This record gives sequence, structure tokens and C-alpha cells, in this order.
Amino acid sequence: MIGTLYGASLGPGDPDLITRRSWALLQSDAYWTYPVKKKKGTSYALQIALQAGLTRPENSSELIFPMTHDKEILAKYWLQAAQTVIDILQQGHDVIFLVEGDASTFSTFQHLAKTVKGLNETIEIETIPGVTSFNAAAARAEMPLADTDDTVAIIPAGYGLEMIDSLLNDFDTLVLLKVKPILDDIIELLQQKNLLSNSCFIEKAGSPEERIIHDVASLRGEKVNYLSLILISNNHHRERGEMIRGCRKKTLSC
Amino acid sequence: MIGTLYGASLGPGDPDLITRRSWALLQSDAYWTYPVKKKKGTSYALQIALQAGLTRPENSSELIFPMTHDKEILAKYWLQAAQTVIDILQQGHDVIFLVEGDASTFSTFQHLAKTVKGLNETIEIETIPGVTSFNAAAARAEMPLADTDDTVAIIPAGYGLEMIDSLLNDFDTLVLLKVKPILDDIIELLQQKNLLSNSCFIEKAGSPEERIIHDVASLRGEKVNYLSLILISNNHHRERGEMIRGCRKKTLSC
Repeated sequence: MIGTLYGASLGPGDPDLITRRSWALLQSDAYWTYPVKKKKGTSYALQIALQAGLTRPENSSELIFPMTHDKEILAKYWLQAAQTVIDILQQGHDVIFLVEGDASTFSTFQHLAKTVKGLNETIEIETIPGVTSFNAAAARAEMPLADTDDTVAIIPAGYGLEMIDSLLNDFDTLVLLKVKPILDDIIELLQQKNLLSNSCFIEKAGSPEERIIHDVASLRGEKVNYLSLILISNNHHRERGEMIRGCRKKTLSC
Repeated sequence: MIGTLYGASLGPGDPDLITRRSWALLQSDAYWTYPVKKKKGTSYALQIALQAGLTRPENSSELIFPMTHDKEILAKYWLQAAQTVIDILQQGHDVIFLVEGDASTFSTFQHLAKTVKGLNETIEIETIPGVTSFNAAAARAEMPLADTDDTVAIIPAGYGLEMIDSLLNDFDTLVLLKVKPILDDIIELLQQKNLLSNSCFIEKAGSPEERIIHDVASLRGEKVNYLSLILISNNHHRERGEMIRGCRKKTLSC
């Protein structure tokens, strides 16, 4: 009997935000695997499970996913990780891969799952969805991620100010991820657009080190964590059209 | 002692996707409140708790949020709901408001919380984030919601084809909500843009009545549920620029 591979989303960091499904899997006798950036590195996903009071079982392995954009290096490590997982599955164990946040959202689980499937398409894989950092951020900031008929854009801030600016026409909510490299420029734009009071900075949302700064302008010149985002909601620059058929309508094409 | 109001997200429908935090609240002696569209109507949020095997406690009340866009009627019902909640809080009970999906994402909880705060700003309110229908949809469809450096747009489909078409330039992933009224037009667009194989239709994601249709074109002319979405991922029309500072760069402005 070959085991099943589970992508177990554990949410943004607070162990209370683990779903019942992932929680049950963590308590089962499934083999744990978890991502690290380098050999014997720390694993944020593993930390979440440990902070929940669980102990890492004997049957567990780290899987290395290095921080690089080099596709050849990545492919080599994905292959290695997939092979490790397949070996365990073939011993008849179920394998859970611990995922911080949600397994479909900016997660290495997708690459692991695809590579496993590529090597052996008969293997059963199940993805357990979870709470994302931006859902946690909105809850903690007490700001809507989306209200009735709202549009939401989630983008890595690194695509630049011009793109962020242009999205203000079409989106009620903007979630700007990884704002660190261009934080001062974003603050400048928010000020120009009179959007500072609609914005909130959230670092490590839903984790014990979480930081929520409503006065975003106060962060000018400050160094912030890599895992930080800015949430802009109720954007008054949004040109909301109408829909037809019980909704608002922007164009006649629908 | 005045109680605390909790917006307890219960996820998209599968009771196993309730978080540990919401689950603990459901088992506490807090007073349950839950939304209905009309007096003694069914409550999807309550259904999730009941499907989890829980029994509605004596200490529970429905709160009416009618299906209308009339702001005056809405305001009247929000006020009524807030007053009901405040009365219970002032009796010293904690109150949980059961929310399907995530309390910050297209949820009436935001309106309830704002109205309660408006009537009595000393009341403590906590939002417990949850799994959204589109996170569940991506997991069930085995499609990424976002891969590395991806951009994601979530929009009610009713804004029309022209808007959907224009977003294909800027977004790797599009989540089109409430596709029912313009489903055939969307299918036509996806065909024209050669995006059918990148798309999936998901109805009532993460609920017992869930339906996942990878062959979206097969739905032409079919009636579908109101709670249905189309997920388009790895959109090859996206013009991905570069970032600077360790990321890709699209413009020089960041």
C-alpha cells in the first residue's frame, strides 16, 4: 500500500489558526516533512506545529528548498525532495508536508506536488487549504479585505510604483506583499494619493512577532522585516462601474 | 462585565476547515448569533457548525441581513442586529457571530462590527480569520492561487468582460466570483484567449455540494449556482515585468 501526500496548510503562524483537518493530520501517525532553506535550517512551518505544543515525531524529515531564482538549482532540489517523499510513501506511510499559510498561495508545496506527480502519477495528493497571511492581516488590522462588490489585487510590491498606481483605478483593495525594498516610495505614493488613512502595515501577520502599524508614514526610513505587507482598503480612487443582472455594470459587454 | 464580540470565521463549508480558534469558541459558553436573509431563514454559517456535529445552544439568536442593495434598509437591519448583540454583551455574555468563509472577505460581519462599535466604542471585538472559498477552490482544483512573484486579482465577474480582459495583462491569476450571470460570455473569452486549459469552474467550494468542472466549456448554456467561481491561473497573457532589489522590475520608479 502506497501512502497519500498531504499538503497541510498551518496558517500564518498562530497555532490557533490551524484548521481541524490539518490538526488531525498532525496528530495522526503520518510522516512529517517540512521545508528548510538550507540543511538543518529552521523551518517556519515546523515552528507553527511546535508552538501548538506538538513534538516533532521520529518519523520526520526536512526537505531543502533553497532561496534562489535559479531554475536549474530549484529543479534539482525539487527532484530530491520529491524522491525523499516518494520513498516514504512507498514504505506505506502517509506523508504530510507542513505549509505556513495556505498551500496554494506562494507555497513550495505546489512544486513538490507537481514533481511527485511527474515521477509517479498514481500517487494520491491532497491539498488542505489554510488561512493566508493577508486574511490574518485584514482581521488583525480590523480592515476589510473585501466588502460587497469589491475588487481585490494581491501583488508583490516589487513590480513597482507605476503598477501599484495604475491598479488604484480598478481595485478597492490592494494587498502589497514584501514591501521592504520600496517601502519609502510606497509611503510617498500613499501620501500623494491621500490614502494613508486607508492603509495599514502588517509585519509577520498572525505570528507571535506580529507588528501592526496603522500610521504607515511613521515607518519612513525604517528597516522592516521581509515578511511585511501593506493593506490598502476602501480605495477612493477606484472607478467603480455598474454591473448588470443584479450587479453593477461597467461596460456593455457582459 | 460586558462581553466580547467575536467574528468566528468557519471556512467555506467543510467543518474540517474550521480553525482551532473558532472551534474552541464554538465549544465555549459564548452566545451564538448567525446571519439569515429573512426571519427563520436558513443560515449557511450555522449549517457549517451543525455539520460539524455541534448542537445549536439555547443561547443563540438569528440576525437578519436581507438581500438588498438598498442602503437605508440595510442600515436599519444592521442597527437592529447590532442592538441585539449589544444587549447580550451587556448581560455579560461573550457573543460569537458565525461567519461562512473569512470574516474580512465579503462578509456581513464587518458591517455588524462597525455598527456595534458605532453604538458603543468600548466594546471589544475580535475577528478570527478563516479559509476563504477561493483558497478552498484552488486546493480542490489542484491549481495554484499564486506561485512565486505571481499577481492575483479577485473580482465579481459582473463588472464585465472588458474589465476581465484588461486584467489579463497584469495578473497571473484571476478569481472571477459569481460568474453565473455572464458564464457563457466568460467561456467565449477564455476560448478566444486560449485560456480554457488554464481555467476551472468551482461551485460551492469546500462544501458538501461542491462541484469542480475542469472542462469549463462544457458548461455552455448550463444553469449554475450563485456561489460559483472561475479560477484562471498561469495566465500566459500576463506581461510580467522585472523587479529590482532582488525582485523583478517592471518600471524604473521603484
